[in-house]
Amino acid sequence: MNGQRLESARKAMAAAGMDALVCRLPENVVMLSGHWPLCGDAVLIFAQEGEAVLLVPDTQAADIAQDFFGTAIMTYPHGRHDSPDQESEIQRCLTDLSRRKRWKKIGIEGDFDSLAASGNAAEPRVPGTKFRRLLENSFGGSEFADASGLLDSLRKSKTAWEIEKIRIACEIANIGIEVFFALADAGRTAIELAAAVESSILVRGIGYKKARRVRAFAQVAVGDSETAMGWRPFEVTTDRKLLSGELSLLELAVVADGYWSDRTRARVAGHARAGQIAANEAVKAAQDSALSAIRPGVSAGTVDAKARATLSMAGYGREFVHITGHGVGFRYHESYPMFTPESAHTLVAGATATVEPGIYSSAFGGIRIEDDIVVTGDGYEILAPFSREIG
Amino acid sequence: MNGQRLESARKAMAAAGMDALVCRLPENVVMLSGHWPLCGDAVLIFAQEGEAVLLVPDTQAADIAQDFFGTAIMTYPHGRHDSPDQESEIQRCLTDLSRRKRWKKIGIEGDFDSLAASGNAAEPRVPGTKFRRLLENSFGGSEFADASGLLDSLRKSKTAWEIEKIRIACEIANIGIEVFFALADAGRTAIELAAAVESSILVRGIGYKKARRVRAFAQVAVGDSETAMGWRPFEVTTDRKLLSGELSLLELAVVADGYWSDRTRARVAGHARAGQIAANEAVKAAQDSALSAIRPGVSAGTVDAKARATLSMAGYGREFVHITGHGVGFRYHESYPMFTPESAHTLVAGATATVEPGIYSSAFGGIRIEDDIVVTGDGYEILAPFSREIG
Repeated sequence: MNGQRLESARKAMAAAGMDALVCRLPENVVMLSGHWPLCGDAVLIFAQEGEAVLLVPDTQAADIAQDFFGTAIMTYPHGRHDSPDQESEIQRCLTDLSRRKRWKKIGIEGDFDSLAASGNAAEPRVPGTKFRRLLENSFGGSEFADASGLLDSLRKSKTAWEIEKIRIACEIANIGIEVFFALADAGRTAIELAAAVESSILVRGIGYKKARRVRAFAQVAVGDSETAMGWRPFEVTTDRKLLSGELSLLELAVVADGYWSDRTRARVAGHARAGQIAANEAVKAAQDSALSAIRPGVSAGTVDAKARATLSMAGYGREFVHITGHGVGFRYHESYPMFTPESAHTLVAGATATVEPGIYSSAFGGIRIEDDIVVTGDGYEILAPFSREIG
Repeated sequence: MNGQRLESARKAMAAAGMDALVCRLPENVVMLSGHWPLCGDAVLIFAQEGEAVLLVPDTQAADIAQDFFGTAIMTYPHGRHDSPDQESEIQRCLTDLSRRKRWKKIGIEGDFDSLAASGNAAEPRVPGTKFRRLLENSFGGSEFADASGLLDSLRKSKTAWEIEKIRIACEIANIGIEVFFALADAGRTAIELAAAVESSILVRGIGYKKARRVRAFAQVAVGDSETAMGWRPFEVTTDRKLLSGELSLLELAVVADGYWSDRTRARVAGHARAGQIAANEAVKAAQDSALSAIRPGVSAGTVDAKARATLSMAGYGREFVHITGHGVGFRYHESYPMFTPESAHTLVAGATATVEPGIYSSAFGGIRIEDDIVVTGDGYEILAPFSREIG
């Protein structure tokens, strides 16, 4: 249970004069209910006073009871050939609910331009214009207000309960990193490495500390030219073979029951050359110096500056092409805090983020070390430490 | 190249009086450009006259050139620590483009309540209120019209080029089904089977007929009680072990470069019992009879009725709890055609769909056979046939 979250949400709603929140985006449903609806076939009605109601297809009720923070699960028939139309059923349930409540102002997900990836192939549901009409039909007398800012603000600081969930995702990621370290030898293709990492996480991650729905997304670059470009978003893993003495780079997303980790490790196949070891030591030092700056009240720009200064001093300033880190937890990438040169963010206790300096060179390839941290009362904690050696 | 699609799109735009379409949802970008932006970091400006322009981060330009139907790729700097703000860059590029064009009416993705799943962990971008404002700022003098209906209508019939892409996704799915058949023995857990299927598809699917970005999402149910519930959406694969004589059920989504397949097979561990074989024969017969009805001009309800009648006659009417099929191709689930009892859809040549009768019983478990078909000029074709035997 996550009472700290329910309390902070209700406090924010009271301050905003919102009597209820209606959420459909999985990242918001999981934050306020504990249930991760994968691709979004759930509607959470979170009242400022009284119990939350989770509206779901009847086929999911048994599954949900294991997660849900609240007490009321409302279901409608769905998924059979003779099931009624889903939108009509949702409207019927919401109208029924509206009769029992008198909400003047309802917060909705009115403004979003991206959403957390889902862990399966089904189409993510978003609260679009149809859903908005459905809400207006159901809660005719209420005013609707965009709650996007309130929801973003809530997720800036994770509760103790949530931090443990993100830690589990990080620990499951370590299963994959361990497999990557063991297999990153000459002759393996990038895609074989990615497949082995993902597979190990499915098999060993499901059931790990009661995690039920786990998925990994691994990207692997192999060799100098691929890893030297291995900082780009949306890398495509190829079937190129790793050669002896070359670097490979694993970028790894893990989602466990709706909580995300984002990790990276590099590895040399066989014997690491002096230049590779020196570069890795510089990246480790940059991560350490960024970490050393992290505590409540510090500017996120300072954290970036620390990593950048360390790599510049070591002669790799121009090779550190990307930012030092970003928020993580309810998404693979959260927008707070951003460890960028010009970040205006100030760190708060409970913030979770990546710290991921890296250097990329056509001379030897690319090395990045990425861990997930939480800002504590007086510093930081790495959520699931793991070896940072390249060989 | 997919000239048939560009032509049909331009014809529909002319009829609707739309001078250009602006697309951001990956399923629309891939349909009109050939490029699959995974989670949506691309904007396609598809003019009714003249070349299409694909606006992407500079880091993706080389990758895109391999797919893109059109000739103009416009890039902006992105992904480095000193890159300018992405939204501002997109607005700058669109404004630049607007100066060269005089478009009175621009079609946008104004109404959607779901989107195709993405093949990686990055957050899918959707054309929300921020993007709408950005378009209004860039194309000040233009009228915006919702093109959702036009886009939906376009995708009802796939071109010869697209059918070959969907066939590749189905053939890659067969790699996974083959592994499932080989491994579904007593002692394996459901999650081990799912992981092996996904892993084999990554390793052998990437590079298959030039497929570059491939991902599988497998759900496996094992044993009587799990497979008997194996018709539910959003099944959760468990670590339960398959026992000798029990059924396992594989539900498999494959996406290859933006084109989806949706397949299912059942398998018995060891020796199949007479009741299981009889049930499987009935499902095969139901699939055959549904298929036999498929041709242009036929009501989709007839296809469902055929499968339902066959299973009723064989005594399994009450065990066939779900619909007979749905559209597939640019998504795992497309909304046309729906093979449901009350479907108002009429089949057109080029429609691609699943045909997936199944029966579910607490006595022996669940069996479903799902293949993807295309409606041809005078009948249907199964896109990548594979054995339907359970042992």
